[in-house]
Amino acid sequence: MFLPKCKRRLFALILAVAMSGPAHTLAQPAWTAKASDPVTLGWMQGSPPAPDRTIRFADGTYRSFPQWRWTVCHFQQLEPTIPVSRGLGPPRPLKRAERADIESLRFTPLGASEPMTFMEAFDRNFTDGLIILHEGRVVYERYAGCLSEQNRHAAMSVTKSLIGLLSEILIAEGTLDENRRVDSYVPELASSAFGDATIRQVLDMTTGLEFSENYNDPAADVWRHAMAGNPLPKPDDYSGPRTYYEYLTTVRRSGPHGAAFGYRTVNTDAMGWILSRVTGRPVSDLLAERLWSRIGADLEAYFTVDSIGTPFAGGGFNAGLRDLARVGQLLLDDGMIDGTRIVPEAAVNSIKRGGSKSAFAQAGYSQLSGWSYRSMWWVTHNKNGAFMARGVYGQSLYIDPTARTVIARFASHPEAGNAANDPTSLPLYQAITDFLMSSVQ
Amino acid sequence: MFLPKCKRRLFALILAVAMSGPAHTLAQPAWTAKASDPVTLGWMQGSPPAPDRTIRFADGTYRSFPQWRWTVCHFQQLEPTIPVSRGLGPPRPLKRAERADIESLRFTPLGASEPMTFMEAFDRNFTDGLIILHEGRVVYERYAGCLSEQNRHAAMSVTKSLIGLLSEILIAEGTLDENRRVDSYVPELASSAFGDATIRQVLDMTTGLEFSENYNDPAADVWRHAMAGNPLPKPDDYSGPRTYYEYLTTVRRSGPHGAAFGYRTVNTDAMGWILSRVTGRPVSDLLAERLWSRIGADLEAYFTVDSIGTPFAGGGFNAGLRDLARVGQLLLDDGMIDGTRIVPEAAVNSIKRGGSKSAFAQAGYSQLSGWSYRSMWWVTHNKNGAFMARGVYGQSLYIDPTARTVIARFASHPEAGNAANDPTSLPLYQAITDFLMSSVQ
Repeated sequence: MFLPKCKRRLFALILAVAMSGPAHTLAQPAWTAKASDPVTLGWMQGSPPAPDRTIRFADGTYRSFPQWRWTVCHFQQLEPTIPVSRGLGPPRPLKRAERADIESLRFTPLGASEPMTFMEAFDRNFTDGLIILHEGRVVYERYAGCLSEQNRHAAMSVTKSLIGLLSEILIAEGTLDENRRVDSYVPELASSAFGDATIRQVLDMTTGLEFSENYNDPAADVWRHAMAGNPLPKPDDYSGPRTYYEYLTTVRRSGPHGAAFGYRTVNTDAMGWILSRVTGRPVSDLLAERLWSRIGADLEAYFTVDSIGTPFAGGGFNAGLRDLARVGQLLLDDGMIDGTRIVPEAAVNSIKRGGSKSAFAQAGYSQLSGWSYRSMWWVTHNKNGAFMARGVYGQSLYIDPTARTVIARFASHPEAGNAANDPTSLPLYQAITDFLMSSVQ
Repeated sequence: MFLPKCKRRLFALILAVAMSGPAHTLAQPAWTAKASDPVTLGWMQGSPPAPDRTIRFADGTYRSFPQWRWTVCHFQQLEPTIPVSRGLGPPRPLKRAERADIESLRFTPLGASEPMTFMEAFDRNFTDGLIILHEGRVVYERYAGCLSEQNRHAAMSVTKSLIGLLSEILIAEGTLDENRRVDSYVPELASSAFGDATIRQVLDMTTGLEFSENYNDPAADVWRHAMAGNPLPKPDDYSGPRTYYEYLTTVRRSGPHGAAFGYRTVNTDAMGWILSRVTGRPVSDLLAERLWSRIGADLEAYFTVDSIGTPFAGGGFNAGLRDLARVGQLLLDDGMIDGTRIVPEAAVNSIKRGGSKSAFAQAGYSQLSGWSYRSMWWVTHNKNGAFMARGVYGQSLYIDPTARTVIARFASHPEAGNAANDPTSLPLYQAITDFLMSSVQ
């Protein structure tokens, strides 16, 4: 396809941005955490940074690996964003009871025969930050790469679980009816695939959507979605949707709703639209009002936005790791903080209960056998009743109610897809919770 | 000049961004604060906002008036920005001793024969927020337009004074020598007009620079500067500077250094480069380390950036009004907070002392007779020794050491240029300080 130079450039930009989608595989599997360390590599250091150490949004370099390990902490510097206020109160200090012996843990990765140490897994997963709370106290906290306790990291699809939690809060309060059709809340979606789906089907991603994530097909839906949300100017001859909302109106139906789980980011974008319409405010403000200003957050958070300022509900949230852990502790404590109810207990219970295992099984996640997906959360149905928020580069919020443990992790794995890091993550989380349940300090 | 469509669009964008310069006059002088209220007008409300209520960065609508009254609180949502951390400590509460009787003040505007009330001036100046501290306590605080105590406002050229303060701190500490030439710190500036200027000349803007701010001339330097700093992709045939730093290397000399005050934003950009080079970090980090994390700030702040993440030192800072007032109180208290020295006393004294009145007089500011400019601060040399930071849409940080008063104001006046709001601001500030000095609570 021939394009004039200025269009080629813009098209390249849009493709670059589109790479933020949830399931492609990057070309360099041979990187190590050490070799890709963004501080050692000196990205964006100096005034100005050296040309070969400069990362830009417009030319797509920010999506390359190992640049990506810098990018995950710097989306605000790369594109427009909308703040999520922490309010004006003091941060709520996290109690600490550090357990250095956690680092001596060993576990066997999925599909492996040899054990791996905790620290080997930390690096193998390209971990940028890991915090573990047990009984509400920090037993372990470690940062690497671009992250510290002072700055923020891209949560990617962990965003979805926060949108799901907000939705469950509104359902519990009676503001949102999970049995109502989407088009009764957002008439603009009436002729889209979402129109006749129920809120519950959208929340559980059992909608029947025609949505291709074939990254090798330039006409794939995942590219059109990314182009729509790209805040940069569109090429002159661009005739597709120009915002996340416009994109959603173009999603077509494929198959029945309610039959099978199908992980599609656009479900969360639709949920973001519904929440905004119901509450009269962007999801960034809703998240600030309901959670970020009430959990004693250390840091203001933010969402990336499209060209009209719409927060990217499907994956644009960026936050501090400790604050993500605070959300996990809030859910572990059934919605209470220091005796004050922040989230209705029914909202937490709805998530913990999980969704349909048979609907989930149809999606074919071989590493997640017996799991379900409920309100944008991944529910393990293991003996401890653990449930998770999961981001595509290894971001995790793992909540184990039985072990009274919260594990929050940010990571920047070179491979986009949890199948790449689950083998060295899920058994690690299990080993951590086993350890904390069994050991007496 | 004929340009292909895609280039015309990009050129229009760049022109739109360039309108952020310091001295042009907008076309609508007939607006009132009430008629232009951004909440009443409903900018960016709704999901999505109505087409005629949508404000975008790329099409330049954000620079139009009355849209501007929304924009001044939302730069983060419009373009990439770099955070200025407030640290992880609790905000330092501001003591309060409110004086509702301040609203009954009357004063006579410059050049007027009839008096005006405090509240008339509040609206006449398109005030978005006004806070007055007396003896370290809040005696008055009021918000309007897009601003509250929870969010941030563009400080525009108030930014310069913060860069000047950081510079004075480094001078007092011996890290920066005010008598050394610029090119001894930043060799890249050797062949520019800045090369043989001293740090002091840059700080006091007595450099001899060829820099046209004629907005009617498409080749004027002010346009080239804005184009260089615009974070959006450049047109394909663009051959000019692509970053703030690149722009600075192109500034040519006109006349001797040290002879006359000439208010040129690029001096502050050059100072930003020097500070970054000397400290090895962006001015956003330096400002966080030296001030924002130590004044008990309520809110994280931020700078707008160019395409390689350089903070716009000349005018890109955005912050909470209370935090701006905290900086004023810090200077009023000679660099101390609660018995802890935050800023060297010599740095504060250097600013308060003021610069050359004769150099200042040559710039011909008829409303500022007898003033001087020192380290990017405006010094009144009035009987109280008041000094100011000033932004082009009426942003003010007015510090009166004798009256023990700090006045911080954010505003979004339709006319870019302090000559438009000084007549209803400077005598108001004088009336406020007179009132607070004379009245016993």
